[in-house]
Amino acid sequence: MPEFRKDLITGEWVIIATERAKRPDKFKKGTSYKKIKTCPESCPFCAGNESMTPKEVFAINSIKERKPDTSGWQVRVVPNKFPALISNLPLDTSKIGIYDKMSGFGVHEVIIISPKHICNIAELGLKELEVMINSYVNRMLSLREDEKIKSIIIMHNQGKEAGASLDHIHSQLFGLPMIPPVLGKELSGTLAYFNSKNSCAICDILKFEKEEDKRVVFENKDFLVFEPFASGSPYETWIVPKRHAHNFEEMTNEQTKSFAYCLKVMLDFFYKNLDNPPFNYYIHTSPTLMDTSKYFHWHLELIPKLTIKAGFEMGTGVNINITKPEYTAEFIKENLKELKIKV
Amino acid sequence: MPEFRKDLITGEWVIIATERAKRPDKFKKGTSYKKIKTCPESCPFCAGNESMTPKEVFAINSIKERKPDTSGWQVRVVPNKFPALISNLPLDTSKIGIYDKMSGFGVHEVIIISPKHICNIAELGLKELEVMINSYVNRMLSLREDEKIKSIIIMHNQGKEAGASLDHIHSQLFGLPMIPPVLGKELSGTLAYFNSKNSCAICDILKFEKEEDKRVVFENKDFLVFEPFASGSPYETWIVPKRHAHNFEEMTNEQTKSFAYCLKVMLDFFYKNLDNPPFNYYIHTSPTLMDTSKYFHWHLELIPKLTIKAGFEMGTGVNINITKPEYTAEFIKENLKELKIKV
Repeated sequence: MPEFRKDLITGEWVIIATERAKRPDKFKKGTSYKKIKTCPESCPFCAGNESMTPKEVFAINSIKERKPDTSGWQVRVVPNKFPALISNLPLDTSKIGIYDKMSGFGVHEVIIISPKHICNIAELGLKELEVMINSYVNRMLSLREDEKIKSIIIMHNQGKEAGASLDHIHSQLFGLPMIPPVLGKELSGTLAYFNSKNSCAICDILKFEKEEDKRVVFENKDFLVFEPFASGSPYETWIVPKRHAHNFEEMTNEQTKSFAYCLKVMLDFFYKNLDNPPFNYYIHTSPTLMDTSKYFHWHLELIPKLTIKAGFEMGTGVNINITKPEYTAEFIKENLKELKIKV
Repeated sequence: MPEFRKDLITGEWVIIATERAKRPDKFKKGTSYKKIKTCPESCPFCAGNESMTPKEVFAINSIKERKPDTSGWQVRVVPNKFPALISNLPLDTSKIGIYDKMSGFGVHEVIIISPKHICNIAELGLKELEVMINSYVNRMLSLREDEKIKSIIIMHNQGKEAGASLDHIHSQLFGLPMIPPVLGKELSGTLAYFNSKNSCAICDILKFEKEEDKRVVFENKDFLVFEPFASGSPYETWIVPKRHAHNFEEMTNEQTKSFAYCLKVMLDFFYKNLDNPPFNYYIHTSPTLMDTSKYFHWHLELIPKLTIKAGFEMGTGVNINITKPEYTAEFIKENLKELKIKV
């Protein structure tokens, strides 16, 4: 029987449509998807080709006394060459008749997470993922200084079908002059929950998920990894710090290691057990100028692109999920036993 | 320069990112996409195969004295064989620990809009589109009688990449026991606008669009067709009745003809000038049990799938549109001159 499930944070309903269900192992793409791509002659993200990108704004170096925009780096952050937003614009609003518009002020950076032409983030080892996360933290801390930026989002698109326009693995950072609606709904939802129950919604979710133990797929001392109760699509996975914290960018070094491990576990699972599907992940952290410390709880959302959002989802905003998160959690857990994490 | 544009109805911002712009004619898929598919032996939607679907709930017949579930129809409406929602369920809510769930009550119907194995709605003539719209109206009027259904959405997915699981052209109808969030935002936005300005937001949009004449692509006596100011993706197109009306299903016969013509114009443009891209359309009409007559204004939204919603759009809810609606409107208008509508 199909059922509606309510998202505890946003209050929105999802349809879990078991009549059209697939078994969790039926989402595999087939091993042909696993082939590794080779480097084209002129990849702007490869070491040695630093002149092909805008000038770097940050790097984590692999050699001492490295000059900017030369090789010898592990992670390199550059402004997007085709930016959706531009940082050296004044923040102007204006009217066109009845409509409002605003200059495209904002930050749009590319975080190149390997100097080698690697096309799948699952090929990164644990140490490399830690370096990547350190670069995320570093950029967020720097950009928080700019009072015109109200929220920062870091995200990663893996594969063409998930929107990656260049193969060479890279994450992206956006600094926005507003709080975007998806984050806004999480903020108002968690604030309403806090006002009514005097506790953090996400802390309560973690507690219940551990208790019920039906959707948790992995945990270590600092993080819980689970499939949300009202998952909007198959294999939606959240990585959430166990200790209440509203800011991703205030993670300790110890937590960075734990977080990288959780991410590695899921990336390996996707690559090996779902045959390398396209996916997106993004980090929801507190807006920079608001004190959300009591009620907001940062987290990473990881969503493989295994189904299509069609007219119904677009026209209603209600997702139809063709599998139960309890089933995908079980399938992940079965397979995690065999995974060997490459350090 | 990129810019933010605010959606007048929802208040949400869209990024118009001209730095990564494509020219409007660069969205063509290539003529190989135009090939017509042939009928498989066992298409459940073809005339003669009526026994392969659940029993019909409505049909518009092409012969007199037709028996249900036999051939001799122009449009045939059946419950979805793999329904996301089921109508003979009690409307129960329950708790799972801290979470809420609800039975999957609702209506999920398939509207088979041709007895022939046609795989592209652009192949329908004007008269056939009118019959299709009459079937939409008829089903909405019937389902409005059920007090458990709070809103009804009709939508159409064209092409696999837009989520059509069967090739044979069909629309779908959902009756929901709630007001879904996308419609909910339009309702609260138009209500707030009405409360502040004592006029309908969409009537004001029509007036301004005609005045400015930069995004209108077509009009006839009853409808205006335009690219919205804050379009979320290239070639997003709205078809809106000129006379204020909150209910799609209360269209007159005359209006049905005008509406079919507008739809035909856009379907032909997509097929001929964008080389048959996948697309979705859906109709936003008033919820059944609310008096929205003063402030809500029904419309059809037509959205080709020409770009990918990636991590940024998913994580923020802010769309990045890589072309200006003014440019796509111009390109459509240029090409409409040459279109000959097949009646």
